Amino acid sequence: MSLWYYEIFENKSRLGLKVNKTVFQAKSEFQTVEIFETDLFGKVLALDSTYQTSVGDEFYYHEMIVHPALTTAPQIRRVLVIGGGDGGSVREVLRHQEVNHVTMVEIDAVVVDACKKHLPEIGQAWSDPRLELLIQDGVAFIEKYNGGPFDVIIIDGPDPVGPAKGLFKYEFYRDCCEKLSPQGVLVVQSESPHVSSESFIDIVSELKKAFRAVHPYLGPVPIYPCGGWSYVYASNQLNPLKIIDQRAERIEKACRYYNRDIHRAAFALPNNLKRILNSK
Amino acid sequence: MSLWYYEIFENKSRLGLKVNKTVFQAKSEFQTVEIFETDLFGKVLALDSTYQTSVGDEFYYHEMIVHPALTTAPQIRRVLVIGGGDGGSVREVLRHQEVNHVTMVEIDAVVVDACKKHLPEIGQAWSDPRLELLIQDGVAFIEKYNGGPFDVIIIDGPDPVGPAKGLFKYEFYRDCCEKLSPQGVLVVQSESPHVSSESFIDIVSELKKAFRAVHPYLGPVPIYPCGGWSYVYASNQLNPLKIIDQRAERIEKACRYYNRDIHRAAFALPNNLKRILNSK
Repeated sequence: MSLWYYEIFENKSRLGLKVNKTVFQAKSEFQTVEIFETDLFGKVLALDSTYQTSVGDEFYYHEMIVHPALTTAPQIRRVLVIGGGDGGSVREVLRHQEVNHVTMVEIDAVVVDACKKHLPEIGQAWSDPRLELLIQDGVAFIEKYNGGPFDVIIIDGPDPVGPAKGLFKYEFYRDCCEKLSPQGVLVVQSESPHVSSESFIDIVSELKKAFRAVHPYLGPVPIYPCGGWSYVYASNQLNPLKIIDQRAERIEKACRYYNRDIHRAAFALPNNLKRILNSK
Repeated sequence: MSLWYYEIFENKSRLGLKVNKTVFQAKSEFQTVEIFETDLFGKVLALDSTYQTSVGDEFYYHEMIVHPALTTAPQIRRVLVIGGGDGGSVREVLRHQEVNHVTMVEIDAVVVDACKKHLPEIGQAWSDPRLELLIQDGVAFIEKYNGGPFDVIIIDGPDPVGPAKGLFKYEFYRDCCEKLSPQGVLVVQSESPHVSSESFIDIVSELKKAFRAVHPYLGPVPIYPCGGWSYVYASNQLNPLKIIDQRAERIEKACRYYNRDIHRAAFALPNNLKRILNSK
């Protein structure tokens, strides 16, 4: 017997996926965590009835939230990932041999445990000795952090609603900026440019208060509302198009979506977004 | 009272849109034609329960099926559009002042009449004196055509199923190639690269039998399955990246999605598609 699972987007649209089997279901302190098997994307992770990632399409998102930063920052020894409980982002970070240490700060242990057990296809790097996993609130972590500076910070959080709101505010970005090395870069997922353009614009505006150089970029994520997604690359002095070819050439061999042409193409913005961003 | 309308994709996923009002509904000789008002995209055209276009997102598709060809072909005096019953493609073609004559061949008069009446926001150029509208089968039209060569042919057809299958076959592409000027270009919509990659690959393969230079390119179409779409630019000698700047500069002012950066970016292909295409 198969059922249909629906993600409802602002009560305007619904993406239904045919589900063959529920793999995992639990209510954590923070959210409802579900993993189920679908025909279209294989196993899917949903939090509070919102699709987060799937075995079938996760590479679009994880390669694009990680590699534009990791192929352009001069140093990438120390990386911080906030969120990303499925393990896909740290997996992509750890593909880079120049990375010595990754700190991953995820608020919900239930998500991590469920993904470790049921989505090993996504989190392939849990046992990498360079990975330090902390279960705590990312906003509080960065506020109190007083260790060495990070070369790259990746904010792989959920939508900017409820408890995650703090991950999308100026104060958090300012704290991140202070904990970055001078030539460091922060990347944040910034919602759908097509159907959530207000959130996207807000995130860009908040980042501009904290960083000198803020570059939005785009890519497909088939399982997200209307299939297109945005990210922002924020730094004080880096050019996201100045790719370190040797590093990118090595990494793109392992990638299913990312390559240097795609990297450059992602930073091309359509007229509608350029006009809104310029009017702010 | 509002209802939910669903497009079912291969019995694997469903995109539901909240509908506030049915604007038009009829069964033509070829298909069920519906226009309804949605919260997310405004008015939507569906044929046989498949979303074709909407007032809210049509510019992504119509600008991208038209302008890469129209800003790179040396001559664009005579243009043929097959399909495109909503009028969006001919509207974009007719924005180019160098275009003297557009022949539009659409099989279903019911679609054209409904769109003329209920979707004037999309088909803004119906009364342009350069437009010649023919209600007939596109495959038969091109087979019998013996007039002067076209500079550009745009195939704005539905999915490659049922009566539209002929629009995606080598014989049709060969006939198109014969009716093109030597420096002409054909563009065809070629399905979702993410979730219909077999159709996409088939279309590229058939085109390669008829044309010397075949270049797939990509763009978002939020209302289509998983929101990403592909097109193919086929010619015997043109380079789709050799943009005629003066023409593109003029046209991009009127565009909501298209600009020269987006044009170049669209031709960047991800690794997964490059690998499948290279293995063929």
